[in-house]
Amino acid sequence: MKQSIGIGLMGMGVVGGGVVDVLFDKEERLAKLIGAPLSLKRVLVRDVNKPRAVGLCDGMLTANADDILDNPDVDIVIEVMGGEQPALDYIMKSISLGKHVVTANKEVMAKHGAEILTHAREQGVQVLFEASVAGGTPIIAPLLRDLVTNDVISINGIINGTTNYILTKMAQEGQDFGVALSAAQELGYAESDPTNDVEGIDAAYKLAILSTLAFRARVSDADVYSEGITHLTAQDFRYASELGYAIKLLAIASKTDGAVHARVHPAMVRSDVMLAKVDGVLNAIEVQTDLAGRVLFHGRGAGDLPTTSAVLADVVNIARDVVGGAPPPPPPSLSDDVSISPISALETKYYMRLNVAERPGVFAQILKVLGDLDISIASAIQKETDDAARRAEIVLMTHRAKEASVQSALQAIGRLEVVNEIGSLIRVEEWD
Amino acid sequence: MKQSIGIGLMGMGVVGGGVVDVLFDKEERLAKLIGAPLSLKRVLVRDVNKPRAVGLCDGMLTANADDILDNPDVDIVIEVMGGEQPALDYIMKSISLGKHVVTANKEVMAKHGAEILTHAREQGVQVLFEASVAGGTPIIAPLLRDLVTNDVISINGIINGTTNYILTKMAQEGQDFGVALSAAQELGYAESDPTNDVEGIDAAYKLAILSTLAFRARVSDADVYSEGITHLTAQDFRYASELGYAIKLLAIASKTDGAVHARVHPAMVRSDVMLAKVDGVLNAIEVQTDLAGRVLFHGRGAGDLPTTSAVLADVVNIARDVVGGAPPPPPPSLSDDVSISPISALETKYYMRLNVAERPGVFAQILKVLGDLDISIASAIQKETDDAARRAEIVLMTHRAKEASVQSALQAIGRLEVVNEIGSLIRVEEWD
Repeated sequence: MKQSIGIGLMGMGVVGGGVVDVLFDKEERLAKLIGAPLSLKRVLVRDVNKPRAVGLCDGMLTANADDILDNPDVDIVIEVMGGEQPALDYIMKSISLGKHVVTANKEVMAKHGAEILTHAREQGVQVLFEASVAGGTPIIAPLLRDLVTNDVISINGIINGTTNYILTKMAQEGQDFGVALSAAQELGYAESDPTNDVEGIDAAYKLAILSTLAFRARVSDADVYSEGITHLTAQDFRYASELGYAIKLLAIASKTDGAVHARVHPAMVRSDVMLAKVDGVLNAIEVQTDLAGRVLFHGRGAGDLPTTSAVLADVVNIARDVVGGAPPPPPPSLSDDVSISPISALETKYYMRLNVAERPGVFAQILKVLGDLDISIASAIQKETDDAARRAEIVLMTHRAKEASVQSALQAIGRLEVVNEIGSLIRVEEWD
Repeated sequence: MKQSIGIGLMGMGVVGGGVVDVLFDKEERLAKLIGAPLSLKRVLVRDVNKPRAVGLCDGMLTANADDILDNPDVDIVIEVMGGEQPALDYIMKSISLGKHVVTANKEVMAKHGAEILTHAREQGVQVLFEASVAGGTPIIAPLLRDLVTNDVISINGIINGTTNYILTKMAQEGQDFGVALSAAQELGYAESDPTNDVEGIDAAYKLAILSTLAFRARVSDADVYSEGITHLTAQDFRYASELGYAIKLLAIASKTDGAVHARVHPAMVRSDVMLAKVDGVLNAIEVQTDLAGRVLFHGRGAGDLPTTSAVLADVVNIARDVVGGAPPPPPPSLSDDVSISPISALETKYYMRLNVAERPGVFAQILKVLGDLDISIASAIQKETDDAARRAEIVLMTHRAKEASVQSALQAIGRLEVVNEIGSLIRVEEWD
């Protein structure tokens, strides 16, 4: 039996700092759980001289990855650097050198997860990544272990806390996007460059990972349609509320007839469903399965301690296997027989907000465009008429329609002389 | 490597039938997941001649448990018979004979879990019991595996679908308990003898299991205070709603200063919290932890397919370890240093509904009793005054008070000449 399990930590930002804190605070408890102590060998940082809050022994910090990769005392590499490179290189090298890997890196796992897991299987090591989706809220292990006998029908989730915080503020306080974003940045819930979050890219990474595991198919972030929240306005939230809906940035995936579709975009959901009530920085993922029905996981999606909870749980579980001499469980096998369904194949209901000239016949013109494309209307309301400027806002809710038809309709509507501006197009998600 | 993994199934009621169905429907998929086929060897039933919907091969059914226990081809015993005996005997014998066990038996695990897991550890076999709490909704494995690095602060849950269905009907349709119970029985959501469910006994079994795992302490069902829902009336739901609360049968456990307290009872919760929105037969369990914060698991708590999902996930996970030659992971070690805190030590807020004579000074008398016991009132409302009969109903909401004081107060209030009847006492649960 091993004397101790050696850890190489790559990255000491917010999450890395949390990992170091808990590794020391819970040293005895972790050793008891594993049956051997964890021993932090080296910590990789960019700048070894930068002053740090966390007190580590002299010589622990290094700017040279080989001090971890080529270190025979390192059994498990924890990668919490983030970003695609050099994290991907370090992960692949760790595996090649027979080291297990625990990562929180959603970008790397979304883009390269299949090859990483294949390489790990060949090398006989484990790669775990619970922290890459929904922070401290379990979802990956439940998908792979607890729900393993199910066929997954769909996944619906709120998996980016930054955008959910912003949307909550827009809904509850009537703020416009820019104001809500600034508020989020001030509280540290959004970065100074918030693109990855507000454009849905972060959520697309996470959905690619979940879809791959749920549907046993290679789904990369490039396969996920993503549309962010920057075009939403306070008016959209007001109208949604009047109509009985909330607006959330949803990550949605399902598999039908051998094709997976995966998308991230703002969506109207009925105000009384569970997902509509997930507020602030929290995440929630609902997995719909054939045996267990709908199962919801809800909790904190980010932050140093929640992410550390997931990272160190993965470390404990690998370490227990190492101590017990258990061979690594095989990673999920992925089918090559599954195609990706494009967004144009979607059929759903839509909300449209149009700014039009206030003249007789405007409605009729718009409805003709829609009717010609087989799009029928559930409701149409004229709002906010500005008599002086002779302008009005029209809010339409369609019945189920084809995405391709709706996009064509929008283009045609935009070309109408009576239409000043296409305000919003928001897809409506409804479930039984 | 083994040719196949032999299964002995004990019990073929609703859950057992579901297990057989899925074992055959998903035969190939399960074999692929495990790396070897599962082979059903024998099924234990009470009456082999009873006509059954599930078609099994001749000779499969037996009324003799030894056909499974003494069968060298049985590697894993699935116990879905329910009840304390003979299930406990069969589980212990299976372990003694070197067989792994998967059970859904909350009563056995609540009363004897510690000794079962100790025996399993000594014999080097696995005993898994995900299905014993919250049906197909993962909770046990997340507690033991995904949240393993956390200290659990508290557990709050709705873990009995029968009572939650009844309470939902009482809340949404203004029904009295008896009417709602009959409706539940007609739909098969409640048994003809509903005692275990409506008296909170079933929930107490499950809370004992969760508390044991969460706090690493021996908590049996006898340590759980339980109070059922039979005394709730439609009026309580109306007043709760007016005051901004929902009424749920909550299972609550926490650990403070080395003492665990665990209780199941009706509770008022604010209408805007997650648990207030869990309706019908669904379950939800919120685990509050030091690192991951509050994590909620929500889904179907019972039924043949959800329970089968959990049972067969446990089977797959044991089978994979057997095929891979992995030694069984050690069960959680339990501390002997933890005491059980009695209900009398509780401090919380309370709702009281009293039926009183409509006379001057009644309020004053009641408030004096409460004041003498250091119980202060947040609000007091007179409702439903019946001038003709000179009777009224008083609804009181206290500030935080000691359980022991409140029980003494109720006794003293009941003895007042002006008080006709103590209508209800419901504890109020509020969280930050």
